Amino acid sequence: MMEVNLYCTGCNHKENINKNISRCPKCGEPMEVELKTKGKIKYSKNIGQNLLEKYQNFFPYLDIKKEDTLGEGFTPLVKLDNLEKKLDIKNLYLKNESQNPTWSFKDRGTLLGILHAKSLGYKKVGTVSTGNMAPSVAAYASKFNMKSYVFVKDNIAEEKLNPILIYNPNLYKVKGDYGSLYYKSLKLGKEKDIYFINSDVPLRVEGSKTIAYEICEQVDFKVPDYIIVPTSAGGNIRGIEKGFREFKEAGLIDNIPKIICAQSEGCSPIHKAYVQNREEIERFKNPYTIAHAIENPLPPSGNQVLRMLKRNGGFTEAVKDEEIINAQKMMAEEGLFMQPASCVPLAALIKLKNNGKIEKDSTIVLIGTGGGLKYTSVFDKYELKYNQIDLESINNI
Amino acid sequence: MMEVNLYCTGCNHKENINKNISRCPKCGEPMEVELKTKGKIKYSKNIGQNLLEKYQNFFPYLDIKKEDTLGEGFTPLVKLDNLEKKLDIKNLYLKNESQNPTWSFKDRGTLLGILHAKSLGYKKVGTVSTGNMAPSVAAYASKFNMKSYVFVKDNIAEEKLNPILIYNPNLYKVKGDYGSLYYKSLKLGKEKDIYFINSDVPLRVEGSKTIAYEICEQVDFKVPDYIIVPTSAGGNIRGIEKGFREFKEAGLIDNIPKIICAQSEGCSPIHKAYVQNREEIERFKNPYTIAHAIENPLPPSGNQVLRMLKRNGGFTEAVKDEEIINAQKMMAEEGLFMQPASCVPLAALIKLKNNGKIEKDSTIVLIGTGGGLKYTSVFDKYELKYNQIDLESINNI
Repeated sequence: MMEVNLYCTGCNHKENINKNISRCPKCGEPMEVELKTKGKIKYSKNIGQNLLEKYQNFFPYLDIKKEDTLGEGFTPLVKLDNLEKKLDIKNLYLKNESQNPTWSFKDRGTLLGILHAKSLGYKKVGTVSTGNMAPSVAAYASKFNMKSYVFVKDNIAEEKLNPILIYNPNLYKVKGDYGSLYYKSLKLGKEKDIYFINSDVPLRVEGSKTIAYEICEQVDFKVPDYIIVPTSAGGNIRGIEKGFREFKEAGLIDNIPKIICAQSEGCSPIHKAYVQNREEIERFKNPYTIAHAIENPLPPSGNQVLRMLKRNGGFTEAVKDEEIINAQKMMAEEGLFMQPASCVPLAALIKLKNNGKIEKDSTIVLIGTGGGLKYTSVFDKYELKYNQIDLESINNI
Repeated sequence: MMEVNLYCTGCNHKENINKNISRCPKCGEPMEVELKTKGKIKYSKNIGQNLLEKYQNFFPYLDIKKEDTLGEGFTPLVKLDNLEKKLDIKNLYLKNESQNPTWSFKDRGTLLGILHAKSLGYKKVGTVSTGNMAPSVAAYASKFNMKSYVFVKDNIAEEKLNPILIYNPNLYKVKGDYGSLYYKSLKLGKEKDIYFINSDVPLRVEGSKTIAYEICEQVDFKVPDYIIVPTSAGGNIRGIEKGFREFKEAGLIDNIPKIICAQSEGCSPIHKAYVQNREEIERFKNPYTIAHAIENPLPPSGNQVLRMLKRNGGFTEAVKDEEIINAQKMMAEEGLFMQPASCVPLAALIKLKNNGKIEKDSTIVLIGTGGGLKYTSVFDKYELKYNQIDLESINNI
């Protein structure tokens, strides 16, 4: 194992990785794992290896064991051929993260967070979640015999509770501002020895970088032009950009795709700051969107996402709930049923294409963060109909 | 492409594969693809390939294209370390088929069925389903621009309907015997030019064989002692056994695991025939079980499963609903939330281990056919509890 530093994405202050620090003690901005991948780093193509074994050279600070996995990652990159024709786009893909152990991308980062927490001697882990992260942290805590403390919003869809509780966490529905809950949890963690694997802790960002690694391999290292990421706290989009950056530094790819931060108009603090050319996000007032999984009014990595987009040349877009539902329908016509948040990238693409901001000869990857079964209340927005018949009359269909 | 025959599993009658024939015109037993794999057949380890490309030598009768996939297969084999200790079993794994595009194993066979239907010029596909197959066929029909006709039982859980309808099929709830519906659908298919990709059509069995291929690779070709398969129509268990058989014939493995057919006591026609030493199954009266996904009172491949078990040296087991729920809880303690049918193998294992029918130094693979979010009504059997707090009182937890 190699000693590796954390550095502050804001002021570059450094800390050793063997600490549970997610925000800079100097300036308050998020910390990130500093990894120098210069020189070609090899990875294995062996089947039967888990995700971290495969990319172990990109995690030199981890003690990786074969059995320490629930089977996260290795998700498909699906060609959306029907949509390519409909939208007049050359190459369009969905990275389908619903094919993870708890059916969202969160499992990648949760595993890394749990392993880090264990290595530091923690026996309790926690999370503050709008949905996907809650079952993920509860599941991995069970797998690794740790106690878990899960804090969810008071207005969480009722149907989301039991799929968290089945893994036996301590679950709290919290009345109050979700943005503040994040900061309160960090304090609570210190007081009660709970390692909070929140949405943008450095190790969760490390999990998300594997999404980029996989995409590179799946397109045979011909890097896409754009990656569109549904964005809430900002941890996932940061991780994906970091993955491409590390592969470039390692000499595995020649360039980095433009990263597009896609938000829902009903809660779009990063988009708002971007279009107003501000360097800092502001709390989004009265957030409301059907894409609950990305409804964070004060994204803790918001400022860093703005800095990252500037460096990367990427940009932002925001879409209405109707556009999100329409995108969900279109995705289902491709045979893919994704949760509303996961359809925000497609809705954003349609808008960007119509406004001439994305060229038709592009290669684009949409990040589908979680499966449609996670939020079935969305069916209220549809008028789905079936027929009722008798066995005898089956021939009259 | 190679010309390949179908042969009858009952009387060995042969037909060309370029026909839509699922049952023998002579004796009525299910047909199967006849594949001679003698001599080492190679397959590729390239990343970015789809499932069928990877194993294309085992599908010589198919025209395989890179884009013809929703990303099925490549599911993880998860070590259940907590359960190994609890149950005193040396090596215990779950093959987690919930990490498929519609979150069940059905996607493997649906893809093959659709490709076969297309190659024969069909524009319509259909299925008769208790649950998992319905969304799978509807999804793949959308992907491949075909019309789909989905027939489900009248007593299907209401929550299962919208997750099928989202893919835009023609969905029929049918009042009448589910076993008979299967046979009626075959007739209907002939009349209306609908290719029915039912649970044990030869091409669906071909899909299931890839589960065995993957397991072999994931255990580094050290073949497990037992594979426990939740069994309804019998197509999946047949496919899994066929996969091991083909790998053995190809010289890739030395022996075939014992296959265990696990059923719910509330609907266990194959188990009943097996313990009564009969060669033919009988219709199971008044079927009722929480494991709806395997509630088939007259499994169309039932007789063939009995013949297969005799050749293989495998056996059967049946478990009560309480045992299934208990197994579901135990699986969640491993961080895996599986639908009730997928927990039948674990319940069967516990019973078999307690009765001394399975040795503690065994290596066992449980087949987890589908994800827990597919049947959330099961939560009624639990008493799951959460806490409600204010943001201010978070420190009092």
